Amino acid sequence: MVITARQEALVVSSWNEMKDDAPTFALNLYLKLFEIIPSAAKRFSFLRDSNVPLEKNAKLKAHAMGVFVMTCEAATQLRKTGRVNMGANTSVQHLGAVHFKAGIGDVHFEILKFALLETIKEGLPYMWSEELKDAWSNSYDHLVAAIKAEM
Amino acid sequence: MVITARQEALVVSSWNEMKDDAPTFALNLYLKLFEIIPSAAKRFSFLRDSNVPLEKNAKLKAHAMGVFVMTCEAATQLRKTGRVNMGANTSVQHLGAVHFKAGIGDVHFEILKFALLETIKEGLPYMWSEELKDAWSNSYDHLVAAIKAEM
Repeated sequence: MVITARQEALVVSSWNEMKDDAPTFALNLYLKLFEIIPSAAKRFSFLRDSNVPLEKNAKLKAHAMGVFVMTCEAATQLRKTGRVNMGANTSVQHLGAVHFKAGIGDVHFEILKFALLETIKEGLPYMWSEELKDAWSNSYDHLVAAIKAEM
Repeated sequence: MVITARQEALVVSSWNEMKDDAPTFALNLYLKLFEIIPSAAKRFSFLRDSNVPLEKNAKLKAHAMGVFVMTCEAATQLRKTGRVNMGANTSVQHLGAVHFKAGIGDVHFEILKFALLETIKEGLPYMWSEELKDAWSNSYDHLVAAIKAEM
């Protein structure tokens, strides 16, 4: 079993808790990412070509939201089918191609994982636990492995 | 002026505060680094070739201590001479060569900076301030710029 029922439940329930305030979580995720590696900003075409401040950049928020939503979906898919395979609109193949083109490497996926976990920890302190951390870690690792396999 | 007298004083006084417990700060720095990018461990020859646990690895501690000591020395040198130029034993040329050989890039220097600031913040909460952060940031940035210029 790649993910336990309890891990899936933890990811889904904490995402439900974050959903209402999803734009804030999305923004915080990228503020954390850029705090760790400021140079990452230039990897996003929609940031390079834009003067809109981060907190008003709709594309950045959509991208960040995707990280939460897809990690959460990965948990459910892993539980159902034992593997990650996103829907047609955000296929793993497409994500592999886009991230390959952008020159994204292992180190970037690792940093985003750290930023994701820190964002959840800071945003949901009353739900945070090592178990919750492991559940998100596990889902994220499987999602990234699926994306990397297409790169 | 690349660094103010006050910034130098902040770096030196906080390092004096950390010095007595330097091995702990050194270890915490690398635990933080490996928390963010677990894959970084394999970049250190003395970790690749060793079964010694991190907290007992003298070479890791010495390396981490170097980050603190040299960033602190950079502050003093910047104040005195306006530039960073380490002593003969740890010359910037040597550091440039070693880091180039190890395949270290911008992203690694950025992550280490984040880990350094977080380690100081967590270890010296009673001294931590935006001003202290900026002082260490400034010294670190100049040290890294000097190393990169030799890479």
